[in-house]
Amino acid sequence: MAFSERIAAPAFRRLVTDQAGAAAHVANGALVGFSGFTGAGYPKAVPAAIAARAQAEHQAGRPFQIGVLTGASTAPELDGVLAEAQAASFRAPYQSDPTMRRAINAGTTRYKDMHLSALGPAVRGGVFGPLDVAVVEVTAIDPDGRLVPSSSVGNNQTWLDTAEAVILEVNEWMSPSLTGMHDVYRPGRAPIPINAPGDRIGTPYLDVDPAKVVAVVVASGPDRNSAFKPVDATSQAIAAHLVDFLTAEQRAGRLPSPLPPLQSGVGNIANAVLAALGASGLRDLTSYTEVIQDGMLGLIERGVMTTASATAFSLSPEAAELMNQKADFFRRHIVLRPQEVSNSPEVISRLGVISCNGMVEADIYGNVNSTHVSGSRMINGIGGSGDFTRNARISTFVTPSTAKGGAVSCIVPMVSHVDHTEHDVDVVVTEQGLADLRRLAPRQRSRAIIAHCAHPDFRDALTDYVDRAEAASDHPGQTPHLLREALSWHVRFQETGSMLA
Amino acid sequence: MAFSERIAAPAFRRLVTDQAGAAAHVANGALVGFSGFTGAGYPKAVPAAIAARAQAEHQAGRPFQIGVLTGASTAPELDGVLAEAQAASFRAPYQSDPTMRRAINAGTTRYKDMHLSALGPAVRGGVFGPLDVAVVEVTAIDPDGRLVPSSSVGNNQTWLDTAEAVILEVNEWMSPSLTGMHDVYRPGRAPIPINAPGDRIGTPYLDVDPAKVVAVVVASGPDRNSAFKPVDATSQAIAAHLVDFLTAEQRAGRLPSPLPPLQSGVGNIANAVLAALGASGLRDLTSYTEVIQDGMLGLIERGVMTTASATAFSLSPEAAELMNQKADFFRRHIVLRPQEVSNSPEVISRLGVISCNGMVEADIYGNVNSTHVSGSRMINGIGGSGDFTRNARISTFVTPSTAKGGAVSCIVPMVSHVDHTEHDVDVVVTEQGLADLRRLAPRQRSRAIIAHCAHPDFRDALTDYVDRAEAASDHPGQTPHLLREALSWHVRFQETGSMLA
Repeated sequence: MAFSERIAAPAFRRLVTDQAGAAAHVANGALVGFSGFTGAGYPKAVPAAIAARAQAEHQAGRPFQIGVLTGASTAPELDGVLAEAQAASFRAPYQSDPTMRRAINAGTTRYKDMHLSALGPAVRGGVFGPLDVAVVEVTAIDPDGRLVPSSSVGNNQTWLDTAEAVILEVNEWMSPSLTGMHDVYRPGRAPIPINAPGDRIGTPYLDVDPAKVVAVVVASGPDRNSAFKPVDATSQAIAAHLVDFLTAEQRAGRLPSPLPPLQSGVGNIANAVLAALGASGLRDLTSYTEVIQDGMLGLIERGVMTTASATAFSLSPEAAELMNQKADFFRRHIVLRPQEVSNSPEVISRLGVISCNGMVEADIYGNVNSTHVSGSRMINGIGGSGDFTRNARISTFVTPSTAKGGAVSCIVPMVSHVDHTEHDVDVVVTEQGLADLRRLAPRQRSRAIIAHCAHPDFRDALTDYVDRAEAASDHPGQTPHLLREALSWHVRFQETGSMLA
Repeated sequence: MAFSERIAAPAFRRLVTDQAGAAAHVANGALVGFSGFTGAGYPKAVPAAIAARAQAEHQAGRPFQIGVLTGASTAPELDGVLAEAQAASFRAPYQSDPTMRRAINAGTTRYKDMHLSALGPAVRGGVFGPLDVAVVEVTAIDPDGRLVPSSSVGNNQTWLDTAEAVILEVNEWMSPSLTGMHDVYRPGRAPIPINAPGDRIGTPYLDVDPAKVVAVVVASGPDRNSAFKPVDATSQAIAAHLVDFLTAEQRAGRLPSPLPPLQSGVGNIANAVLAALGASGLRDLTSYTEVIQDGMLGLIERGVMTTASATAFSLSPEAAELMNQKADFFRRHIVLRPQEVSNSPEVISRLGVISCNGMVEADIYGNVNSTHVSGSRMINGIGGSGDFTRNARISTFVTPSTAKGGAVSCIVPMVSHVDHTEHDVDVVVTEQGLADLRRLAPRQRSRAIIAHCAHPDFRDALTDYVDRAEAASDHPGQTPHLLREALSWHVRFQETGSMLA
C-alpha cells in the first residue's frame, strides 16, 4: 500500500492498494477500458497484474481472458504482457505491439480495427456491451477528487463515465506541470464549439463518481518514449515535395496564408515534414492532430507554430525532459483533448485541416492501404488516418516509393486492402515526387502517380499494366483493370519475396 | 423572348432571352455549374442549346467541350444531350445517364466520382479553377430579385456565388407552392447549427448578384419523375430484416424510441424499407437524407413520419401531383437544403443518423462496392452514400443476394472496387438475412455474412474459400485471403457471364 502526496482526496486514499489487489477486480470475460494513446498515458502496473492472474488461472486449467479497449497503441507493459499471457480475447481500436500483432494475425485475439473517433460513441451506445472496468492512469487526484490527466486523454472520460468499476493508477513519474494542459469535453448532440485549434471548451480535469472507484494504485514509470531516427534523405525528399506543393497552392490562391491547421501522422517521415516546414519560412503554423511529436515542440519553441491540439504526447526521452522543464511555456501553446474531439470529423472539416499520413501502399488509381501486408496480415491498424483523411481540406499520403530494399513497390496496380478510397485521397507523395489527384479522373491519376511517385525500377511495368488495361476491348471502363493480374504483384511477393519480375 | 409572370423583378425581365441566346454565353472550355439533383431541378432548355452549339462547332471542325458540374444526377435533357453531342470533357460529382456513362467508360469524358458534400467546398476553394458559368433552374424570381428554388437545392447557391456569369432558367411547370419549402444556408467556418432534422437555419430563397446574370430563359417541363416499380418479394424481405434489426436494437436499449433520423438511398429497395417502416408500428420517425421519395410522402401523410430533411425531391408523376396539391401541408414537414448541409458529416454525426444504401456487392469481410462492375466499369457513382455511411450511428447496406438471374453473387470473396471500407460498414442485408458486423473481427464477419447474407447457391463456395484462406500456413492473418483467387469470381463472370463454377 503505497502512500502518495499525489492523492489529495481522502476518499481516494482509502482505496490505495497494490496492483494485484486492483487486478482482483477484473473478472474473466470482463470488458476493460484502459487509458493509453500512442505509447503515452497507459497504466504501467495493473495490466501486468491482470496478465499474472490470467497465467495463474490458465495454469490451473481455468479460462481467463478479457476484452481490451484503449485509446490507441500502448506499450509492452499493456498490450505486450496481456498478449503474452493470452489474456486478450478482443482488442480495439488500434495497437502496434509485436506480440499482440501475432495473436491478432493468428486469429486468437479478435481485433476490431476502428477509426479512433468511433470507439467512444460505440461504447457509450452499448455496441460492445457493458464496460465492466476502467483502468486509467492519472498524474494526480486533487483535494476535490478531480483527476489530473496524464500524457494522453484518449477515451478516458468515456471509460470513467461508462465503466461499472474504476481502477486509477497514479503515476508519480508524470510531471505535475501537465496540470492545465488538458481540455476535457464530453461530445453530445450539440455542435462542438471549436473554431480554432487552440479553443478550450471543457475543463482541465477528468471526473469520476467516487462510488465507482474500487482501487487506486501508485505507480512510477515513463511512457514508451521511443527515440526518433535521424531524418534520412528519403524522408527529406518527401517533406520537400510536400512543402513545395503547399507553398505553390498558397501562391495559386488556393490555400490561405497562414496555412490551415496541419495534421501529421506518427513517425519519422511526419517528423521530417515538420522539420521541413520549420525551415521553409512558413510562419504562424497551427496543428490540429492526434499526437504531439518532437518536431512540433521545436516549431513551437522557435515561434514557427503557435498552437498544437492533440490527444497525446509521443515524445523521445529528450523531448519529454524538455516538456517537463518548459511546461509553463508549452501550456500556452498546446491543448490535449479527448480523441473524439482531436479526431472529430466535424471539427476537422470546419478547420479545413491539411492531413498527412503514412501508408503501406497506394495503387495507380489513388486507393490507399494503411494496414495490411498482402491483403491478409495486419500491421497496426487504421488509427486516426481515416478521421482526418475523410474530412481534410487536402488529404495527403506519404511513403518511400519502395520497401524491402527495393524489392517491393509501394505503388501497385491494385492495393491488396483498401483503407482510404479513391474518393478521399487527394495527394500521393514519395521521394520521387508528388501527384495531385484532386482534378483527375482515374485514367489521368494512373499516369500522374506512375510518372511522379513510382520508383523507376517499377515504372515501366506499371505503365505496361495500364496500357494493356486501357486497351482491353472486352471490359473498358472508368478504372481500367486486368483482374487476372491486378494482385499478381502481391502474389509474386508472397512467392518470391520480391515484386520484381 | 418569352414573357413570364414568374419574373417579377424588372432588372431580370430585361435579361429574358431564348435558350440559344443564353447558350451563347457558354464558351468552349468553360467550366459550368448546372443545377440538378437526382433528376430534379435541372435546367430543361439551356443544356440542349449548349449541345446544339457543340454539334455545330464540331461540324465546322472546331472544338467545343465544357466541364459539367451538377448537384448529382440529372436527366436526358442535361447529361444525355451533352454526352450525345460529345460536349462534356469533364463531369463531377455524380451521374446516371446511359450516354454519359458510355462516354465515361470509354474515357472520352473524364469523370471525378466524388462524395456529394465535397464538390461545393472544392469549387469555392478553386480546386477546379474558376467557375465560368452557372445555369440554375428556379421556380420564380420575386420582386426583390430573390430566387425561389425549384425541386432541388443542390450546389445552386455555391454556383450562383462563384460563377463569373449566371444563366437562370425559370421553369413555369414548377409549382409556386414550393415557396418556403427550402432552407438555403452557406456553410462556413462555424458550426452548422442544426440539432434536429427540421431546424431551419437559413432563408427560403437563393440569392444572386444581378450584375452577374447574363440571361434569363423561360422554360416549362416536368422533372424526370420516374415511376417506382411495385415492391417485390426480395425488397420486402430485405426491408423486413432491417426493420426487425432496428426494433431489436430498440428493445436491447441500444437505440432510442423514437428512432434517430433515417437516411435512405434512392430506388425501389429504399422505398420498400420505407413502406415496411410505415407498417411496423414505429412512430414519430424522422428523416435526414438526400432525396424525398414517394414512400416518405406516404409516411408523412399518415403521421408516421414527422419531419424529412433532404436536398431534392425524386417523385413519381403521381407523387409530384400530390405534392403540388398538398404543398401547404408538406411544407410543415419537409425542408430542402443545400447538399453540403443535407449531406454534412457534421450534422449526420450529431443527429446519429441511421443510413441505408444500396450497393453492387459486399465482400465476406464487409467491404462494399457501390460503383463499379468488375473493378473497371462505372455504373453511376458513389453519390452521397459515403457522406452518410462514414458518419452514421449505424450504417447499413442492402442488396439482393444475387444479380443477373442468379448467375452473379452479390457476396464475393473480395470486392473488385472499394467505395466503403470494412471500417465503415456496420450491417449488411440481403433477402437471405442480416449480418451485424459491429462487434466482429474479420474472421467472424466472414462467417456471419456467408451464413446470413449469401445466397445458398454460393454459400459453399464462399465457405470453401474462407476455410482454405484461414488454413494457408504461409500467410495467416487478420483478414485471410488467397490473392490468386480473391478476384477469380469476377474473372469467371467476365469470361463466362456467370460466377457459378
